[in-house]
Amino acid sequence: MSAFDELMAFQRETEALAQVAGRLGWDQETVMPRGAAPQRGEEMAAMEGVLHARRVDPRIPEWLDRIDEAALNPVGQAQLRDIRRSHARSSKVPAALAARIARVTSEAQGIWAEARAADDVAAFAPTLADVIALKREEGQALAAGGDVYDAMLDDYEPGARAAELEAMFGALRPELTRLREAVRAAEAPPVLEGRFDAETQMKLTRQLATTFGYDMSMGRVDKAVHPFSSGSGLDVRITTRTNELDPFNCFYSTIHEVGHACYEQGIDKDYLLTPLGAGVSMGVHESQSRIYENQLGRSRAFTGWLYGQMRDAFGDFGVVDEETFYRIVNRVSDGYIRTEADELQYNLHVLLRFDLERALMAGDLQVGDLEAAWNDRFEADFGYAVDRPSNGVLQDVHWSVGLFGYFPTYSLGNVYAGCLNTALRRDVPELDAQLAQGDTSEATGWLRENVQRHGGLYAPRDLITRATGEQPSEAPLLSYLTEKFSTLYAL
Amino acid sequence: MSAFDELMAFQRETEALAQVAGRLGWDQETVMPRGAAPQRGEEMAAMEGVLHARRVDPRIPEWLDRIDEAALNPVGQAQLRDIRRSHARSSKVPAALAARIARVTSEAQGIWAEARAADDVAAFAPTLADVIALKREEGQALAAGGDVYDAMLDDYEPGARAAELEAMFGALRPELTRLREAVRAAEAPPVLEGRFDAETQMKLTRQLATTFGYDMSMGRVDKAVHPFSSGSGLDVRITTRTNELDPFNCFYSTIHEVGHACYEQGIDKDYLLTPLGAGVSMGVHESQSRIYENQLGRSRAFTGWLYGQMRDAFGDFGVVDEETFYRIVNRVSDGYIRTEADELQYNLHVLLRFDLERALMAGDLQVGDLEAAWNDRFEADFGYAVDRPSNGVLQDVHWSVGLFGYFPTYSLGNVYAGCLNTALRRDVPELDAQLAQGDTSEATGWLRENVQRHGGLYAPRDLITRATGEQPSEAPLLSYLTEKFSTLYAL
Repeated sequence: MSAFDELMAFQRETEALAQVAGRLGWDQETVMPRGAAPQRGEEMAAMEGVLHARRVDPRIPEWLDRIDEAALNPVGQAQLRDIRRSHARSSKVPAALAARIARVTSEAQGIWAEARAADDVAAFAPTLADVIALKREEGQALAAGGDVYDAMLDDYEPGARAAELEAMFGALRPELTRLREAVRAAEAPPVLEGRFDAETQMKLTRQLATTFGYDMSMGRVDKAVHPFSSGSGLDVRITTRTNELDPFNCFYSTIHEVGHACYEQGIDKDYLLTPLGAGVSMGVHESQSRIYENQLGRSRAFTGWLYGQMRDAFGDFGVVDEETFYRIVNRVSDGYIRTEADELQYNLHVLLRFDLERALMAGDLQVGDLEAAWNDRFEADFGYAVDRPSNGVLQDVHWSVGLFGYFPTYSLGNVYAGCLNTALRRDVPELDAQLAQGDTSEATGWLRENVQRHGGLYAPRDLITRATGEQPSEAPLLSYLTEKFSTLYAL
Repeated sequence: MSAFDELMAFQRETEALAQVAGRLGWDQETVMPRGAAPQRGEEMAAMEGVLHARRVDPRIPEWLDRIDEAALNPVGQAQLRDIRRSHARSSKVPAALAARIARVTSEAQGIWAEARAADDVAAFAPTLADVIALKREEGQALAAGGDVYDAMLDDYEPGARAAELEAMFGALRPELTRLREAVRAAEAPPVLEGRFDAETQMKLTRQLATTFGYDMSMGRVDKAVHPFSSGSGLDVRITTRTNELDPFNCFYSTIHEVGHACYEQGIDKDYLLTPLGAGVSMGVHESQSRIYENQLGRSRAFTGWLYGQMRDAFGDFGVVDEETFYRIVNRVSDGYIRTEADELQYNLHVLLRFDLERALMAGDLQVGDLEAAWNDRFEADFGYAVDRPSNGVLQDVHWSVGLFGYFPTYSLGNVYAGCLNTALRRDVPELDAQLAQGDTSEATGWLRENVQRHGGLYAPRDLITRATGEQPSEAPLLSYLTEKFSTLYAL
């Protein structure tokens, strides 16, 4: 075997073990008996130990040294790039620091959950300060003299830079707040009323998953408290949830997760169990989930078809026609919670977090001042005050588990979805006629061909540029939102 | 940390990883999407590789050398005994041979399944010959000059010897065939008729699991093609199956698997994720599943209670009274298949396999003569001829996957269950009155106290001797069966 073959065989086992560890997570959120939690913690830690040891295995640099990279094809070179990147990252963080972060964030999550339940910011503050200090230390190790926040961001969005996101988001924010204000002043659509049987929701939600191209022979749909997609390759599972008062929560959670899952399922099978065999970044992942959910799933054309499906499933549910249904699905409502936000307001929630977490990491904002900073910014952007910490600074799990640099990938994903939507509509002029028939095959086929199949082959920005023919920018998202909500609300 | 603490910490991670690998098996049989199979194969192999590397880790003998064993308490000494045993076993088999066995048996299982479906013994014969040759080579490596079959047996039943089993089984066989003949000549009880809704079966089966002490907060009951119990410690799951014509299949599969699961759940939590934290042998495991299923679950007292539960669940199902119900539950019918055999005939199926597989391993029986040997022996013991290979020599998966030395542990488990039943009834004179109320708590408590809680602390024979106060023997099982079936069939 050549050094390259040996390295790839080693890596293949590592990827297989990473899939096993990921499936433990799925199991924990869906089927694990509650009493198994303490043992599960040890199982997860043991798997992490195995994976970490493989990522820093001293044979990796030896193999890399022996490989004539120039003789490889571009796919082989991309595989090496990812292996080198992962090895370098894992080797830069001292094992003792990684272990401390694992232990502190594991405890912090519990402390955060209790503080949120009690609306008690002070109860979480010291722990958050510890997490920030440790993550900053990790960021410094990773940055090796460069920008600490960029080093964190790079974990989730390889190659992205905060300055570039700042420019994009800076252009989005005033336009979104302006649009939001105008919508708030306009006449609101009705709200959905009635009860929608949970089992019927699950039946329709599975049908929707298939409608969007999710391959059930290599996946499954279960219920969980928080919807998620899990796994790569031949076993990609999603979860959803049901609320009998709000069937859209179930359906659009499903379509969102199907976007993530179809990305994983759509990757070229030649990359199975290799570094290129998973989505390239969180931002690109979110672009797929959001375009499935919003630009396709919440379009006038598709909701027209969905209206018929819901009438078939639930009978007359009190919504008089497709147009009203479309307005209800896309209703903009006041609210505090990011995960419940509509398409128009969602990014305002993310931008707030992006600015605050950069300030925290830079030391420009102290944990003691965080709540006030959150509340000021929220009122400035949304026009009303946060009523309690669980609706404000304590609402998200991310910071407690050390996810800094993760939030902006949500909005970057929306920006990418905007770019892809423009290109898709250019290339598929019949799109709306197809969606009106519940036919997403050409849209999802276009995404598979131009985005999904490449897995980790191209850097995120390059991938979007290749797919759309243009450099990514916030402009398409902004025109899409402006046009959609101006029409919906007759602005 | 002392060498002992270091070794135990290492071992704890190994045990946690073994639990993860076991849960992959559960996932595969219950929830895995069918299209995931090829990837799953690589995941399992990668986990096996990790576990094997840990079992032969060169640090283990170093730690063992540094430990002053005489200074440890008996539990610590037993932990070392098991670690030493596992390390020695894994080190004796050359890695290349282990890999060849894994590959050949993985293929052989598929070839066997096709041969069984086609009733084609010749299609499986060459593969079986390969498996036998490889397993013999492994047995020789393990035996290191000793008896090859004993070395195989030792994998499943530490310390057991074929000669000792031969003596026990030799005493059982003539008595069982005689009893079987007498029952066959007597008047048969009626058979169960009607359809029994599958969902209602599952509801009652979950209730039965709880009735027998299965802790659902650390377990779960799912459906699978073949019932099994999986996992140790805080996460022990069982599966069952439903057939609307045969609810007893569901209920008694469940009670059987609950016996296995309660053994794992009943082990002292001090042994969690240590070598002592799992059932000590296949034979002792089977003793628990069989005493739950048969001596308790199929007793006159318990079936009286179950009759009432079934009437509550299904209404009048055409069985007039408890006595008739008891006779139906324990009906002895002609049949070819081991897994469908009743309590009286089951061991005859096992004894046949024990004798044949020893002859195969010793080279006294060739694969080409195996079918004839099976059919001759079957007719001698059961009184009628095998009609086709899928009802005979091709019925079990075991040999195809290299399980030689495993079959006798089924009958040894039945022998142990007989011993335990005698001691239990001696110590709990009110047992039948309790079972008649659906109260198994004192019986399962006795088993937990005397057998289950000890995990791997005592050698199997010693454990049974301690629990019963007598050396294990086939005599209690034989008197139990003779009395039960003589009464039932008025012999």
